[in-house]
Amino acid sequence: MRSRSGILLLMALLLTGLSAARPPKRARDYGLRLGVVPAGPLNAITDVPGVRVGQITLQQGTSVRTGVTAIIPHTGNLFQQKCPAAIYIGNGFGKLTGISQVDELGTLETPIILTNTLSVPTAADALIDYTLSQPGNEQVRSVNAVVGETNDGYLNDIRGRHVTKQHVLDALRQATTGPVAEGNVGAGTGTVCFGFKGGIGTASRKLPASLGGYTVGALVQTNFGGVLQIAGVPVGVELGKYSYKENLDGSCMMVVITDAPLDARNLKRLAKRAFMGLAQTGGIASNGSGDYVIAVSTAYQIPHESKSPFDEQKVLRNDNVSPLFMAAIEATEEAIINSLFMAQTMTGDQNHNIEALPVDRVVDLLKKAGVIK
Amino acid sequence: MRSRSGILLLMALLLTGLSAARPPKRARDYGLRLGVVPAGPLNAITDVPGVRVGQITLQQGTSVRTGVTAIIPHTGNLFQQKCPAAIYIGNGFGKLTGISQVDELGTLETPIILTNTLSVPTAADALIDYTLSQPGNEQVRSVNAVVGETNDGYLNDIRGRHVTKQHVLDALRQATTGPVAEGNVGAGTGTVCFGFKGGIGTASRKLPASLGGYTVGALVQTNFGGVLQIAGVPVGVELGKYSYKENLDGSCMMVVITDAPLDARNLKRLAKRAFMGLAQTGGIASNGSGDYVIAVSTAYQIPHESKSPFDEQKVLRNDNVSPLFMAAIEATEEAIINSLFMAQTMTGDQNHNIEALPVDRVVDLLKKAGVIK
Amino acid sequence: MRSRSGILLLMALLLTGLSAARPPKRARDYGLRLGVVPAGPLNAITDVPGVRVGQITLQQGTSVRTGVTAIIPHTGNLFQQKCPAAIYIGNGFGKLTGISQVDELGTLETPIILTNTLSVPTAADALIDYTLSQPGNEQVRSVNAVVGETNDGYLNDIRGRHVTKQHVLDALRQATTGPVAEGNVGAGTGTVCFGFKGGIGTASRKLPASLGGYTVGALVQTNFGGVLQIAGVPVGVELGKYSYKENLDGSCMMVVITDAPLDARNLKRLAKRAFMGLAQTGGIASNGSGDYVIAVSTAYQIPHESKSPFDEQKVLRNDNVSPLFMAAIEATEEAIINSLFMAQTMTGDQNHNIEALPVDRVVDLLKKAGVIK
Amino acid sequence: MRSRSGILLLMALLLTGLSAARPPKRARDYGLRLGVVPAGPLNAITDVPGVRVGQITLQQGTSVRTGVTAIIPHTGNLFQQKCPAAIYIGNGFGKLTGISQVDELGTLETPIILTNTLSVPTAADALIDYTLSQPGNEQVRSVNAVVGETNDGYLNDIRGRHVTKQHVLDALRQATTGPVAEGNVGAGTGTVCFGFKGGIGTASRKLPASLGGYTVGALVQTNFGGVLQIAGVPVGVELGKYSYKENLDGSCMMVVITDAPLDARNLKRLAKRAFMGLAQTGGIASNGSGDYVIAVSTAYQIPHESKSPFDEQKVLRNDNVSPLFMAAIEATEEAIINSLFMAQTMTGDQNHNIEALPVDRVVDLLKKAGVIK
Repeated sequence: MRSRSGILLLMALLLTGLSAARPPKRARDYGLRLGVVPAGPLNAITDVPGVRVGQITLQQGTSVRTGVTAIIPHTGNLFQQKCPAAIYIGNGFGKLTGISQVDELGTLETPIILTNTLSVPTAADALIDYTLSQPGNEQVRSVNAVVGETNDGYLNDIRGRHVTKQHVLDALRQATTGPVAEGNVGAGTGTVCFGFKGGIGTASRKLPASLGGYTVGALVQTNFGGVLQIAGVPVGVELGKYSYKENLDGSCMMVVITDAPLDARNLKRLAKRAFMGLAQTGGIASNGSGDYVIAVSTAYQIPHESKSPFDEQKVLRNDNVSPLFMAAIEATEEAIINSLFMAQTMTGDQNHNIEALPVDRVVDLLKKAGVIK
Repeated sequence: MRSRSGILLLMALLLTGLSAARPPKRARDYGLRLGVVPAGPLNAITDVPGVRVGQITLQQGTSVRTGVTAIIPHTGNLFQQKCPAAIYIGNGFGKLTGISQVDELGTLETPIILTNTLSVPTAADALIDYTLSQPGNEQVRSVNAVVGETNDGYLNDIRGRHVTKQHVLDALRQATTGPVAEGNVGAGTGTVCFGFKGGIGTASRKLPASLGGYTVGALVQTNFGGVLQIAGVPVGVELGKYSYKENLDGSCMMVVITDAPLDARNLKRLAKRAFMGLAQTGGIASNGSGDYVIAVSTAYQIPHESKSPFDEQKVLRNDNVSPLFMAAIEATEEAIINSLFMAQTMTGDQNHNIEALPVDRVVDLLKKAGVIK
Repeated sequence: MRSRSGILLLMALLLTGLSAARPPKRARDYGLRLGVVPAGPLNAITDVPGVRVGQITLQQGTSVRTGVTAIIPHTGNLFQQKCPAAIYIGNGFGKLTGISQVDELGTLETPIILTNTLSVPTAADALIDYTLSQPGNEQVRSVNAVVGETNDGYLNDIRGRHVTKQHVLDALRQATTGPVAEGNVGAGTGTVCFGFKGGIGTASRKLPASLGGYTVGALVQTNFGGVLQIAGVPVGVELGKYSYKENLDGSCMMVVITDAPLDARNLKRLAKRAFMGLAQTGGIASNGSGDYVIAVSTAYQIPHESKSPFDEQKVLRNDNVSPLFMAAIEATEEAIINSLFMAQTMTGDQNHNIEALPVDRVVDLLKKAGVIK
Repeated sequence: MRSRSGILLLMALLLTGLSAARPPKRARDYGLRLGVVPAGPLNAITDVPGVRVGQITLQQGTSVRTGVTAIIPHTGNLFQQKCPAAIYIGNGFGKLTGISQVDELGTLETPIILTNTLSVPTAADALIDYTLSQPGNEQVRSVNAVVGETNDGYLNDIRGRHVTKQHVLDALRQATTGPVAEGNVGAGTGTVCFGFKGGIGTASRKLPASLGGYTVGALVQTNFGGVLQIAGVPVGVELGKYSYKENLDGSCMMVVITDAPLDARNLKRLAKRAFMGLAQTGGIASNGSGDYVIAVSTAYQIPHESKSPFDEQKVLRNDNVSPLFMAAIEATEEAIINSLFMAQTMTGDQNHNIEALPVDRVVDLLKKAGVIK
């Protein structure tokens, strides 16, 4: 009997080991299709030409579980060639910097940094370093740093403020096009979503040529609550991981970038649709949530200085933006789901432990519901 | 062989007849459960004590398919005893009146009227009549009429402006507690939702006593588009009724009333969550959509005049509102689904025809997905 | 002795008669210069090419003291060729209709109507009539009527709602370029400002060619309170007509039109500056005030329908808008002062009487302060 | 001849010396009275009981001209006992942090720090230090630091970022009740206003007992442009120091604190009135201006944690706030004027020089206009 249970134990350990060794896969790799708009080739924010992402993951000792995610919309000098941009506030219990200037002027002039709540000033300071030191910016005396955050203070020793300016500058330097690491990386290293391990996620949508052929990419830092749904399947309820009141709080930072020529007004509308994507996953934007969307267009730039008194813009008409809205909803929804699929169980500060989404069980549920064939 | 097919045809006709004769049922009557919070006894906005709803349906000749829905939050003189209230604008392509005063003062001083787009001024005028003529309002010289709308101009001869002030006053007079008629009634008589016949829908949620025992009721006028999901099941896709661009426009008016003691600031947050309920159904708030939420609390009143310079308010703390947020999302989602289940096929102006949601097929889909057992 | 006093009395009566007979003059005609930017040739909103104003004054019997003012930004079909526009809410205790759609889409599609508080629905209904019946609008099924108001209920029997749709249509039909009637006319017939008779006022500013040569015109309906200042001279204090609490309430509708190519975002900023012009006159935007600014550009139009998916816009850069801000402040300030100079003493409903600003005494005060030489 | 010119030179030096030696006086000390509401005993933000101000002035070598101003609303643990608060954005071209959380929750949980544009992150980081280290805050993992700024980059080597966290902590530690230093101190050390030397200014208003007896205090950091008016006298024009386009940019941070029991909604309205006070001085909120008002009530606190699910609030009714609006306008106007009267000529970075307001000439102008007797 003993030997038998011993063998079973061994098998269990082996399976666990195998499971741990098996690299996580994205939702789409399991056959899951969310929405009706096709994804871009990478199914990532980097499907928008020129967009780069860089991440620094801080996983040190028993308590440091945090990091930095940097998103750079174009390859030029962003301060000198600003992007049209807008910010939508889903729930404002957060510390995103730079809101009012983006709102007033309709432009983004720094990369976007995501990190933890208490490291926002450090990251903002690093963005100022970055901008002041760029060639061509020698006379710059004002920088509107855009830094978002969620609170990883359950798994991470957030009060220790372990992110340094160098980490931020490193994330910016390493930023690259191509596939984006997801799950327990960068600003998502220590986050928790729907009671499971959250993290960084990304996805994209590409409209058919008849609707302009534009790409909409989303990148999210998931740290929020509600009752998890995946493709509408009430996974949170099925797994018994939900409640009216517990596990509700937290936040979600969402970055949406498109190559469609939208001005700031329509980018604000696009940003609001990303928030609808969060709703699709069962997020409720609880009282304690800091849910923000930063939307950026790379279709044209607005120069910091110009000899002309005019900006000449060729922008999409209002009555052509709805397909982009749909794309933003879907990309954000899938980015959130990807963050859950790609994150892995983590133990951190004060020995707190958060389990990864049990993907195998979830896939079973999705198959049973007919969502995955 | 002929006779046989003849019999089959006859049977089909009979079944169709039966089907038409069979009164529509609400989603919950088919066993559908949306969300995790229990519904109130009527599963209607009238579960909030004191709330009354009155509706006038105008279905005349081949072209008139419109009406009026009136919601009265409490039984007193609403102008003299105002309700705390807030309005959230999901997408502002609509004509809702009264927005800025509700925002500035945080109060509602008239019943809420829903009707069609071009009849808003008529309804607002009627609300002024109603208020000026109420006993106690003899000195009133300013009335902030709150009138929402959606555009029923596909089935209804909207340019004919068939709603009269008397219709509005009749809806107010007939307003009553108890069950609320849904589907092709009142302001929902001629509306279209996700390409199917839309209309009026309602639902409610009641928090457990441990969370305050509060009720949140929703009433919606559905006239919008997107890709219909019911309990997450992609019904729109399955039925082939969706698209990137067609049938997307339209609007949704949402009214959310609660007996929880929320002030205007937290009511605005509650209103935003109702909009998340719309997102749960697959709505995308397309460019042409006028999506608004009016949120009202009946827990206390703010007197028009007072001998005291103070209002004394006992309001829920910020950190206790999240369960109400969840309730608002769920009630709104279910109200929208109810509007679709209860609406029936309609032919109207210019012989336009809109089919009802094929409930039997939908129920099959929901069963297949395991959403209905 | 008698004869002597008799003669004096006669002289006094004659002088009074003369004074009454003497047509009022605008502030500038007394030598008053407000601000540093030159006025346009008419010093009126109609200095912006194409702008037309039409007014209907209802002064009937002892109680009717109200009217309608219509502003039409361009001579084409405004619904088909919309103007970029924005609305700023200084204090939202008012009933302006159309706010959310202007905000969402950034366009104005009807003329602007000003009237009294309780006649807003009537005017909105008339704007719908007007728009539906315009050639080319046969298929229009949605109209965002923009109607502002202030409350003339002290001098006018406002509860009688004496404005009809025909009055509004007449104001639209009579709208014309050229000088604009001020004082007790149109929507300003029965208004009260700083405790004196208010009304309609207008003014304009024209930037020098080096700053673009653009014109900014303002038209106001003044019905608000505070402590009147004219060119900074504390006229309200000097005349003993002010208080902490009395005479504070009321409202001000401000319309600002420019031929500068501003998009909706910068028009919203321009609108806010008009509100700063109100502040310059000593207005305090009291609790009961409905202070709104509607800002419109006539520099380009946005077609209702277009074969192109794009709008191509050549708009002023952010860093070129400040001189327009200054122009908007000054034009609004002077328009308000003009409304006071041009209004005349009125007796109205319930025998209420409001004195005109005692212009002679005011001019003396201004001379003493060195403001008028 | 030599001796004679020598004597003249000596006299000039003596006069300069005398002038420099003569301490600047506040506007009121010259007999200037702005508005109609009486000032509090100190005519300072510290007239509101419990409010403390601390300032660190950095004037080092030829290039460092900056500093820190800290405002602490009450003497308790501000994080644990939050103040109702609101922020109004006059023009959003600035970097104020903490906006969205104050908006969402209606509370302030840190002191307010003012500094220069590029030192905002440093100051925010210091506020986090301050809050985390306060007794009772051992479990705090989220801090909404509120840091405002204006750009002193003309007189100050702003790119050198000379403000350290210790400077901010020192300003907090030194914060005290009583008179507040004005002019070239703290965050106003290197600022420029209307082309003259700006700085820190403060003022207050105290309503008569019949209107509640409340105090409204304002503190400003002035760094903006326009056409300076003092008590309406066009000082900028008279001194030839204004223009359409030059010297317009810059910013103004305004802090308004009151002991009146206002909730966040009415505090936002109060904040907007402070912005009207800026308008009264001839400020135009130019494109490049970051004009923000932070409004705080000290009348009651909102505990971070509570056993009760409710906050019980006794707040002023809407119809009693207008006198406070007037007080906020006047206090802000006078605070701005005080900043100009108290600032002194300064030479700084790159040998840039900004003259102080020529107070003697200004007083002459004010006397001529009858504003000072």
